[in-house]
Amino acid sequence: MVGGGQLARMMIPAAVELGIELRVLAEADGMSAALAATAVGDYREAETVLAFAEGVDVVTFDHEHVPQDVLRALVDAGHRVHPGPDALRFAQDKRAMRERMAELGAPQPDWAPVDSRADLERFLADHGGVGVVKTATGGYDGKGVRVVRAAAEAHDWLDGAAAGGPRLLVEELVPFSRELAQLVARRPSGETLVWPLVQTVQRDSICAEVLAPARHAERIQPLVDDIARGIADGLGVTGVLAVELFETSDGRVLVNELAMRPHNSGHWTIDGSITSQFEQHLRAVLDLPLGSTALLAPASVMINVIGGPASGSMTDRYRAALHAHPDVKVHSYAKATRPGRKVGHVTAIGDDLDEVAYRARAAAAHFDA
Amino acid sequence: MVGGGQLARMMIPAAVELGIELRVLAEADGMSAALAATAVGDYREAETVLAFAEGVDVVTFDHEHVPQDVLRALVDAGHRVHPGPDALRFAQDKRAMRERMAELGAPQPDWAPVDSRADLERFLADHGGVGVVKTATGGYDGKGVRVVRAAAEAHDWLDGAAAGGPRLLVEELVPFSRELAQLVARRPSGETLVWPLVQTVQRDSICAEVLAPARHAERIQPLVDDIARGIADGLGVTGVLAVELFETSDGRVLVNELAMRPHNSGHWTIDGSITSQFEQHLRAVLDLPLGSTALLAPASVMINVIGGPASGSMTDRYRAALHAHPDVKVHSYAKATRPGRKVGHVTAIGDDLDEVAYRARAAAAHFDA
Repeated sequence: MVGGGQLARMMIPAAVELGIELRVLAEADGMSAALAATAVGDYREAETVLAFAEGVDVVTFDHEHVPQDVLRALVDAGHRVHPGPDALRFAQDKRAMRERMAELGAPQPDWAPVDSRADLERFLADHGGVGVVKTATGGYDGKGVRVVRAAAEAHDWLDGAAAGGPRLLVEELVPFSRELAQLVARRPSGETLVWPLVQTVQRDSICAEVLAPARHAERIQPLVDDIARGIADGLGVTGVLAVELFETSDGRVLVNELAMRPHNSGHWTIDGSITSQFEQHLRAVLDLPLGSTALLAPASVMINVIGGPASGSMTDRYRAALHAHPDVKVHSYAKATRPGRKVGHVTAIGDDLDEVAYRARAAAAHFDA
Repeated sequence: MVGGGQLARMMIPAAVELGIELRVLAEADGMSAALAATAVGDYREAETVLAFAEGVDVVTFDHEHVPQDVLRALVDAGHRVHPGPDALRFAQDKRAMRERMAELGAPQPDWAPVDSRADLERFLADHGGVGVVKTATGGYDGKGVRVVRAAAEAHDWLDGAAAGGPRLLVEELVPFSRELAQLVARRPSGETLVWPLVQTVQRDSICAEVLAPARHAERIQPLVDDIARGIADGLGVTGVLAVELFETSDGRVLVNELAMRPHNSGHWTIDGSITSQFEQHLRAVLDLPLGSTALLAPASVMINVIGGPASGSMTDRYRAALHAHPDVKVHSYAKATRPGRKVGHVTAIGDDLDEVAYRARAAAAHFDA
């Protein structure tokens, strides 16, 4: 696995239980997945990644940032790479993704490529004077995304694009009633499997909560299944794919973003599903039979621990959370706290979504104030 | 954790999720828990164990074989050791254990210390001419246990004991209807928590199956709870304690053996309980609040994978098991197969114990023939 963050860390338990040897190429010493790190180096350097990949059965990723030339070098050297460069391109370039979604007929917001100020002005004029400008590459957790009401508000990005920086696109500002995410796993041999549709709640553009399954999703679940499987097949994604969606008040679902790896919207599966997204990703990239995505309880709620406590030590909060909530699973990423940084999550499971959400929030609150 | 076997291996996922740094002193390179091994050495050498323990918060164990003088040296050097030497003595010496069980009033088979052939002959004469001779120290998985119908059948052990080898004891051969195991966790500050009583099925003196919860256990569960908590408190055990029991056809339960660590009879908790025995052991030895022992499903059945397939590769069997049983959890210990060796286990969970047992056995059968 290239990348040593918390996704790589959470892959370790699945690898240990399955008896799979996991090796991690970490960006630095002491990262979240340090336990499995067999190499430290820059994932943008083909030489580093090729040396790391020597002797492994399959190469996979903790993030989508490995450059295409490095991915191609891996494939050219005969390595099995999952997901492969052709699929990852659509997670790396939002313009390519939007074009491909259109070809696949996946429902998505109105959008347009932006290669000039005029392009942006035209789109804004056609969409009530507002739009969401995005850099096609390099964004995450709200970075590279800006709601604008005039082209001037994106002048720095327009200048950057003109100077060879990230290309831009603009999307309609969707008046969504809620955000959803559909997780799907796909093996190289083609088998796909979905978990139930979940609701995600973002705060400050960071995922704060996940409610699984999403309420009142019975009607749209079959449609969303089809969308997610269609994207996984259409893009040739191997491993876990997260499809982030908007649901509008008039009952449409629109594809927002794609992540080709285990995703924050699927952390609840560690405690709430027979097969976690991390185990499933390993099975999928190794082309092993996929595991059941059945639920361990009717409702699961995951809350991120972001930034750490305003006062006092994380250790004390941790002890207090365990004491007050013996039935809530507390996950720590062993990362130093800093504002806005995801340092852990908690998951509660049970029969009733409201009760489970209350319990999860109460446990997570121990890490806040 | 001193010892690098599969118990240490299965501790890794719990440590990773809790954000606890686990360090393992392994007996050799490439052991089951190699991923977490920070040292390789002989646990019988105080110098080795003391060096390993430098800088850790607490020392715990994958087995009960660390000699008392090494344990005392750790305590004398100021290390927190859980379970401590005073408790471990009763897992290391079956005569001391039997004496202490008697003091605590725990129900147990009739027994007697054997320091001479005459001692053994007297016991056999008083118990229908049959008894179970045990070495007080060094036994496991049926080793150091022998059913005898004449003192001569233990002559080698009697000679050994007279020559300074392991001391002996003899126990009545209990006409049990089934074997049970009660898992309990205890923190240094005193909190204890039990999982439901389980039934264990032994084959060739090795644990083959665990059915959780044991059928028709409602009546005896409170009694067994009291026995297990009484032993944990009475012996000052910290961490997880497994109390193996005989149930007799006339409805009595008798303490058979003790294990002061996560135990094969508790592997089902990884998939069947909110808190696994491995997570609970870590919480307990670190004196963190214990986690809920509630069940994730009404029934869990664990089957050991022993010895590996008679023909064909383990990898092929593994793939076939995953394919046929997407809802069964397959655990591999990454150990080379050899006859009689535990190399993994499978766990199924569900609503009905019979159905779950059938499914678990079918999955495990992939590794046999």
